[in-house]
Amino acid sequence: MPDFPIRELQRFSMEALTKCGVPLEDAEIVTESIVFAHTTGKGTHGLGRLPIYLRKIQSGLMRRDTPLKPVVSALALEVLDADHGFGQVAAVHGMQRAISMSETYGVGLVGIRHSNNFGTAAFIASAAVKANKIGIVMSNAAPAISAPGSTTPILGTNPLAFGFPSGDDGSPIVFDMAISNAARGKIRLAAANGEEIPEGWAVDENGVPTTSAEAALAGAMLPIGGAKGYGLALSVDILAGLLTGSAFGGGAKNLDHKTDRSDCGHFLLAIDVSKFMALQDYQERISRLSKAVKSSGSPGVVILPGERSRRYMDDRNETVPLTPAVVEKLDTVSAELGLPPLESIR
Amino acid sequence: MPDFPIRELQRFSMEALTKCGVPLEDAEIVTESIVFAHTTGKGTHGLGRLPIYLRKIQSGLMRRDTPLKPVVSALALEVLDADHGFGQVAAVHGMQRAISMSETYGVGLVGIRHSNNFGTAAFIASAAVKANKIGIVMSNAAPAISAPGSTTPILGTNPLAFGFPSGDDGSPIVFDMAISNAARGKIRLAAANGEEIPEGWAVDENGVPTTSAEAALAGAMLPIGGAKGYGLALSVDILAGLLTGSAFGGGAKNLDHKTDRSDCGHFLLAIDVSKFMALQDYQERISRLSKAVKSSGSPGVVILPGERSRRYMDDRNETVPLTPAVVEKLDTVSAELGLPPLESIR
Repeated sequence: MPDFPIRELQRFSMEALTKCGVPLEDAEIVTESIVFAHTTGKGTHGLGRLPIYLRKIQSGLMRRDTPLKPVVSALALEVLDADHGFGQVAAVHGMQRAISMSETYGVGLVGIRHSNNFGTAAFIASAAVKANKIGIVMSNAAPAISAPGSTTPILGTNPLAFGFPSGDDGSPIVFDMAISNAARGKIRLAAANGEEIPEGWAVDENGVPTTSAEAALAGAMLPIGGAKGYGLALSVDILAGLLTGSAFGGGAKNLDHKTDRSDCGHFLLAIDVSKFMALQDYQERISRLSKAVKSSGSPGVVILPGERSRRYMDDRNETVPLTPAVVEKLDTVSAELGLPPLESIR
Repeated sequence: MPDFPIRELQRFSMEALTKCGVPLEDAEIVTESIVFAHTTGKGTHGLGRLPIYLRKIQSGLMRRDTPLKPVVSALALEVLDADHGFGQVAAVHGMQRAISMSETYGVGLVGIRHSNNFGTAAFIASAAVKANKIGIVMSNAAPAISAPGSTTPILGTNPLAFGFPSGDDGSPIVFDMAISNAARGKIRLAAANGEEIPEGWAVDENGVPTTSAEAALAGAMLPIGGAKGYGLALSVDILAGLLTGSAFGGGAKNLDHKTDRSDCGHFLLAIDVSKFMALQDYQERISRLSKAVKSSGSPGVVILPGERSRRYMDDRNETVPLTPAVVEKLDTVSAELGLPPLESIR
C-alpha cells in the first residue's frame, strides 16, 4: 500500500469538505478526527469516509452544518439536536458542554439527537481528557449484532469509550471498543479489499460462522461475551439512541446507507476529577495504577489501553498507508470537485 | 439439594445480622439483597455470604453499621465513606442520593469509599429503576483477571449493571454482568462443592486453561473479549476504586479475606428519564424497543436482560435450593449465635 503524508491527508480533507460547503471550523473538527483515526491505527474510520460524507451532503441525507439546538436542558444535563449533521462535530461540541457542566456540578451529561457516525469514540473521549476530565462516550449504530437465539441483526456494534487523564508520565488511558468482536468498519474494509476475515468475527445470514467479509455483512457480527455483549449493546442503544430522541431498536442506518439518514445518537458524560481530589493526587494514583498493571507481567509485555494507538506513529515518519480501493475513491472525489489529487510519497 | 422457603431465609438472615449488632434498617437492606440474589437465580451472592459477614464483624474487619460520611460534595456529585461497613447498605443509600440529585440536576453521581462487596449489582440498579431512574452501577473487586500477556491477576471481575425503568408491560430491563466470562462466585461455589468448571472460564497459575475450580482460584479468570474485557475492568477499577479513594490496582481484597479489609469502592450513577421526555413517551419507546428486539428471533426465543432472573421463581413455590456446603456453614452460625437452625421443607 502506498504511504501518504499526514499533512497531505489534512490538506485533502479540508479542501474537499470546505468545497462542499462545510463550515471551516466544522471541517477542522472532521479533519482532526480523520487524522486521529489514521495516526492511531484506526484507518477504517479515516479518509475513506470522506466520499460518503460528500455523497450524503449532495443528496440531502446529511447537513453541511451541524446546528446543535438545545432541546433538553436540566442543569447538569443537555440534549442537543444535530439535525443530521456531522457526528464528530456534534460529539466534540457536546463533550465540551458536558465538560463545562462538570466543572460546576461535578458531572455533566450530554445527549446528541439525530446524528451520524462520529468516527472513533477515542477521539471524543480524548476531548475530555485534554480538559483533565474523565470522559465516557457511547453511540448507537445500525443493526449488526443479533440477540442470542436470533440471526437477525437488531443492535449496533455500538462503540463505547472511557478516557482518563494521564498521570505523571503524561500518558492518558483511553479505552475504546466496539461491542462486537471486531469493528464493522474492519469487515467493510476487508469486503472492499476482497480480503477474508478471521473466524469468530461474524456469522452469515443463516447463523453459520463465516470468514467471508461479504457474507458477514449480510449476516450478523458476534458480540464479545455472548449475552454480555448483547446486554451492553442494548444498554448503549437505550442511552445513546432511545433516550436522546434518535433512532433505536434497529432503526439507525449505516453511514453509507444510500437512501436514508443514519439518525444515530450519542451519550457523552464528563466527570471533573478535581472535584474528587486534588489533580496531583489523582495523577499520583493513576501513575501508581499504571505501574501496578504493567508490572503484573514481564517487562514491556502488558500495555495500557490507548498505548498501542499512541505509539502507532512512532516509526512511520509522518506518513500512513491507504488501501488502493480508498485511494481510487478519493481520486474520484478530487476529479469531481476539481481539487488536486491526493499525493503519495514515492 | 434441599429447598428452603424464602421467608425462612429472611428470618434467618434478620436474626443473625441483628444478633451481631447490625442496625435493624441495615439488616433489612442486607437481607433484601440476599433474598434478591436467591430469587433471581444468583444464589452465589446469597445466604452463603452471611457466615463471612459475621466472621468479619467479629474480627473487626467489617463495621456493624455503615456510617456513609460525605467526604466530597459538588452539587450533582457526592462521595460517601462507608468506613468498611456493608456494601449493600452503602450502595443502596448511595443510589438513593444519586436519584435525589438526578431529580434536580438531571444526573446524579455517587462514589462509595472503603466498602465491601454489595451483592448483585442488579439489586442496586433496581433501586434506581423503582424510582423511574436509569441506574448505572459499578464496583471494583479483588484481583481475579490478568492483563493480556500476563498470568498474574491484577483487576477484579468488577461487576457492571444498567437498570432501565419498564415500558407499558411493567418489565424493567436490568442488565448485570461480571467482566469475566463467569462470576468468581460461581467458581468459588464450584470449589466449595468439589465441582469442575466449564472450559473458557479460567486459567491456572501458569496461564494454562483449566476446568479445576481450585486451580482457577489460584490462577486467573478470563475476561470477555480479551483486551476489551481487560479495558472494561480497568475502567471500572478507576471509576469505582481509584476515583472514590478506595483500593485499586490489585489492592482490593476478597470479601472472605482472612486478615484484611476489602476496601473496594462503588460508582453509582442515576439519570432522571423524565428530564429527557415525558415518562409516558419513554415507556412507549422502551416497549417498542423490547418488541423490536424480541421479534428479531423466533417467538419466545429472544429474551431481554433481567427477564430470566425475573422468571426464576415462577414455578418454585416460594422456595429456593441451598447447597449442603452452605447449609452446613449456616448451621454452625445458628449454633454459635443460639438461633433456631435454618429449616428446609421436607
